[in-house]
Amino acid sequence: MSRRAPNTPSRASSRDAFIRATGRLLRQQGYDATGLSEIVAGSGAPKGSLYFHFPGGKEELAVAAMQREGGQLRSAIASIMSSGDDLAAALGALVDALAQGLEGSGFRDGCPIATVTLEAATRSEAVRATAASVFESWLEALQEGFMARGLDSPTARRRALLALSAIEGALILARARRDLEPLVAVREELVELMA
Amino acid sequence: MSRRAPNTPSRASSRDAFIRATGRLLRQQGYDATGLSEIVAGSGAPKGSLYFHFPGGKEELAVAAMQREGGQLRSAIASIMSSGDDLAAALGALVDALAQGLEGSGFRDGCPIATVTLEAATRSEAVRATAASVFESWLEALQEGFMARGLDSPTARRRALLALSAIEGALILARARRDLEPLVAVREELVELMA
Repeated sequence: MSRRAPNTPSRASSRDAFIRATGRLLRQQGYDATGLSEIVAGSGAPKGSLYFHFPGGKEELAVAAMQREGGQLRSAIASIMSSGDDLAAALGALVDALAQGLEGSGFRDGCPIATVTLEAATRSEAVRATAASVFESWLEALQEGFMARGLDSPTARRRALLALSAIEGALILARARRDLEPLVAVREELVELMA
Repeated sequence: MSRRAPNTPSRASSRDAFIRATGRLLRQQGYDATGLSEIVAGSGAPKGSLYFHFPGGKEELAVAAMQREGGQLRSAIASIMSSGDDLAAALGALVDALAQGLEGSGFRDGCPIATVTLEAATRSEAVRATAASVFESWLEALQEGFMARGLDSPTARRRALLALSAIEGALILARARRDLEPLVAVREELVELMA
């Protein structure tokens, strides 16, 4: 039996709770609007343990959150891309999943990487390098899916860059408009291009 | 002769200087990182006149800067699209111009609208609505250019949404990577699609 009081999170779960809260806030409002006190409040973990886990403060938390959310989305892309669907259908399913997440959150939950990249890539080399490596992991997952369905490597790379760019941009336009038209159009055009 | 001392900006030019400084800062670092004192310093205009021109503070300044930069880019899109080039060449020229601006600024000068949209669209209805209307004006300029070259209206609308989304997303990826590969790939793919 643990000697911790009930409802006191373990060290590991506090660390995880901080990362999850940071990821959610980066996705919804970005880096500069997110304060450490808001992260603590959102995490439910004890404030005193924040600097124990993240002596580098907000920058270190942001990097951890970007890696975590980036890894989850990489797995989701790889899973959709390795489904039995043809290329166009797989890409359509990926856009549908992202559109559903955006609409279901009242147009708050966009990309977990884009906002912080645009804000902080010039100021924080750690944030910039993490964003670059997360985007690269998504591109590789897309490119592998395209190559598994017969595209040669350079074409698959260019199409992966087009698809990821178009999806990222459509998420921005959709948040501004508060409607899904940009994602629907990008879905249709990509599916047609890939068919 | 004016009775103002030499080098004292006029009211109109102070207003304009505040808007230009805000636009540059929104483009490079976003909304939340940009403070009023930084805007004043960047503008060269007298601090005391900031609230005279912009009683609504940063939000009002941001809206004015987004409208100004949005209008300039709308004109640039319309001008490129009404050139003698065919559709693919015109779209290629547009991407080239944006890539040049990004690289020439050391990957600091991205889209003047995207960062502030992702940060503030959920919190500020004025920012969100301005972003939506600027994006719409760019989409219309693209769509008109596509229709003038023979695309029907719904296809031109979808292609405009794809092109703008892909360019916006490629600007994010390029800033993270500090290289132009995403813009080069998007350019090639869009040109091929439109040819």
